[in-house]
Amino acid sequence: MREWTYEGLMQELTKTAETKILLVVLDGLGGLPISEIGGKTELEASKKPNLDELAKSSMLGLLEPVLPGISPGSSAGHFALFGYDPLRYYVGRGVLEALGIGFPLQEGDVAIRANFATAQYEGNQPIIVDRRAGRPKTEETERLCAELKNAISEIDGVQILIEPVKEHRFVIVLRGEGLGEGVRDTDPQVTGRPPLTPQPEPDNPENRRTAEIAVKLIERTAEVLRSEPKANYVLLRGFAKRPNWVSFSELYKLNACCIAVYPMYRGLAQLVGMKVLDFEGDTIADEIAALKSVWNDYDFFFLHIKPTDSRGEDGNWQGKIAVIEEFDKNLPDILALKPDVLAITGDHSTPATYRAHSWHPVPVLLHSRWVIPDPEVKGFGERTCAKGTLGRIPSKFLMSLLLAHAERLERYQA
Amino acid sequence: MREWTYEGLMQELTKTAETKILLVVLDGLGGLPISEIGGKTELEASKKPNLDELAKSSMLGLLEPVLPGISPGSSAGHFALFGYDPLRYYVGRGVLEALGIGFPLQEGDVAIRANFATAQYEGNQPIIVDRRAGRPKTEETERLCAELKNAISEIDGVQILIEPVKEHRFVIVLRGEGLGEGVRDTDPQVTGRPPLTPQPEPDNPENRRTAEIAVKLIERTAEVLRSEPKANYVLLRGFAKRPNWVSFSELYKLNACCIAVYPMYRGLAQLVGMKVLDFEGDTIADEIAALKSVWNDYDFFFLHIKPTDSRGEDGNWQGKIAVIEEFDKNLPDILALKPDVLAITGDHSTPATYRAHSWHPVPVLLHSRWVIPDPEVKGFGERTCAKGTLGRIPSKFLMSLLLAHAERLERYQA
Repeated sequence: MREWTYEGLMQELTKTAETKILLVVLDGLGGLPISEIGGKTELEASKKPNLDELAKSSMLGLLEPVLPGISPGSSAGHFALFGYDPLRYYVGRGVLEALGIGFPLQEGDVAIRANFATAQYEGNQPIIVDRRAGRPKTEETERLCAELKNAISEIDGVQILIEPVKEHRFVIVLRGEGLGEGVRDTDPQVTGRPPLTPQPEPDNPENRRTAEIAVKLIERTAEVLRSEPKANYVLLRGFAKRPNWVSFSELYKLNACCIAVYPMYRGLAQLVGMKVLDFEGDTIADEIAALKSVWNDYDFFFLHIKPTDSRGEDGNWQGKIAVIEEFDKNLPDILALKPDVLAITGDHSTPATYRAHSWHPVPVLLHSRWVIPDPEVKGFGERTCAKGTLGRIPSKFLMSLLLAHAERLERYQA
Repeated sequence: MREWTYEGLMQELTKTAETKILLVVLDGLGGLPISEIGGKTELEASKKPNLDELAKSSMLGLLEPVLPGISPGSSAGHFALFGYDPLRYYVGRGVLEALGIGFPLQEGDVAIRANFATAQYEGNQPIIVDRRAGRPKTEETERLCAELKNAISEIDGVQILIEPVKEHRFVIVLRGEGLGEGVRDTDPQVTGRPPLTPQPEPDNPENRRTAEIAVKLIERTAEVLRSEPKANYVLLRGFAKRPNWVSFSELYKLNACCIAVYPMYRGLAQLVGMKVLDFEGDTIADEIAALKSVWNDYDFFFLHIKPTDSRGEDGNWQGKIAVIEEFDKNLPDILALKPDVLAITGDHSTPATYRAHSWHPVPVLLHSRWVIPDPEVKGFGERTCAKGTLGRIPSKFLMSLLLAHAERLERYQA
């Protein structure tokens, strides 16, 4: 007896159609009650006549990104929305760091999160005394990376690519044949200890090759940085390759397009095989203009709006409300495109009172001609969604719901 | 690709913190409408001003202990609340019977549920004519167990421990080296047949050793009981060892304490590695006094209140209401401890009209500074919970919710 997996079902049942699906992700949409505004959440308190009107003819519900109580990172939240179970599909930290700066990872590349650190030498033995080299400014890290880049471009036939990220963090990418990702971190996690050696996971010559390159790379960087007062050493973490997952088009027979400003989300969309659109500007209106410009070219659109999350992380509930209200003003332009299926949701909650990604399930609004609206619903909010006709479902099932409402799924079994 | 399990996630993501979590289990809390009181349930009909007030600033929901339609035993209901999936974590009947009388099972012990039975001999062949020996009174079983204990303390180097339970039931524990638990029941399940021999599961010398001891034990007990008019034979069932599961502290990094009066629940808490508190008295007030006395010593507290279930099993809805009202009167003393996270729920439902454990999901109230209360909620009851903002979730996910609200979980993936 074979048990159908969700992915298997999707590949088996999806069919092409003329319908268009639009998934709008207001990053970190969900919030918590705020006492200063009478216990309303950011979403509830927003003046959003268009969203509230749309809610009356839509189904509302709550999406659970991972499991109850689990606060997802950006990757987990998005993979879930794309229908990729985040407990099975996840990527290593090196890859996420590279995606975050928009680094164009190629197949076979090994991406590494690197830190500048401070070492003191006891004879030839480095001892890590500051794991973050006193947290250099980003410009300083840019200068240090430029020096490393100048000095080191290749080791044993492997190309060494170096890019700054932020403060003490940068990315190193190893590009070459036969490199494995199974290599342990060199960060000792505590100060006063020597760095760890980059241990390969056993019985794999590809991991061994990566580890050998890493050993030489560490030596070379230490030479280059020898005269730096603080950032004189490099710690390596999160060795990872870009995964080679079943693509959006293979899974769903969709021709999908991503409209996002931030590199991380563009990278996540690329990982599942979406076309990532280049466009001018970075406002919500700019994104919608870009959406409009390619409306005829694709049948699935992932529109990512970042500042809801950023304001939430800053604890700025007024700012988060303003972003939601700005989106609401632009909503008529989206509706004018007449998507057959429209979902408006988040990848996770970022309550401004909590100032971080949280575990609270995320409000979702699903609009299509095939929904069952609730006549009592007055608007789009956490509590109307908690009682919504869509119920509370794992985020990963949003994709099959979108496909169903777009009449893109065959019946399961006769 | 490795799929994260719930247990794996918990071990990976939990972190220590200064917060305190209190889980109050009103055993068998859930009920059904009672026509004599206008169709209200026991919980709905209770006068419980403190609980109703607390509900207004909490999240309400329903917990599903096992699966829809499945009525859990006490062990399954509690394992689920402790975050141990009851479809994966369960213990043999011998162990449950031993826990039920507070028998201090040691690692390696094989616990057996035993029945006194009546045998008639055809030559040397016993034929079971009453599988419960006419249901002797508990005092009679105590006398019989004392006789067995006097006569049999050891077989082939294995210590034989015998303790009465109730009516025809008692517990036998085999304590010694190299004993397996894979031995079949000897109860023929119908009368008029010989007892079964204790068959070891194949290819395991430890099971064979237990079976050999069991054969001799049955012969010895039959000799001792030879002159008894009814209870002249012993049937053995549910050979089981105490399992060695990942502990509460390993899973959650919690220092957990159990406050319970009944041996069974104390035993269940011990199985997952909680410290079980000894204290004076057996009322709800006594339990709360005990809770108060150790409030500074632990960070997780499991407070078990039994009589809601007992009254439900008796069909005594007035009695069950009285227990809920007694708990309500004591609630201010609990709230005065200011737990960071407080959950009030049951391990299963025991509707007084049904007079048994039932499959109905269990009302739950979750209180912390990070909840989304429903302004329309007027009180704590099955129907307010069915519409609650917490939704309906498997009981096993209550633990990750408690940990999240206590800020004891790291984010999943970057």
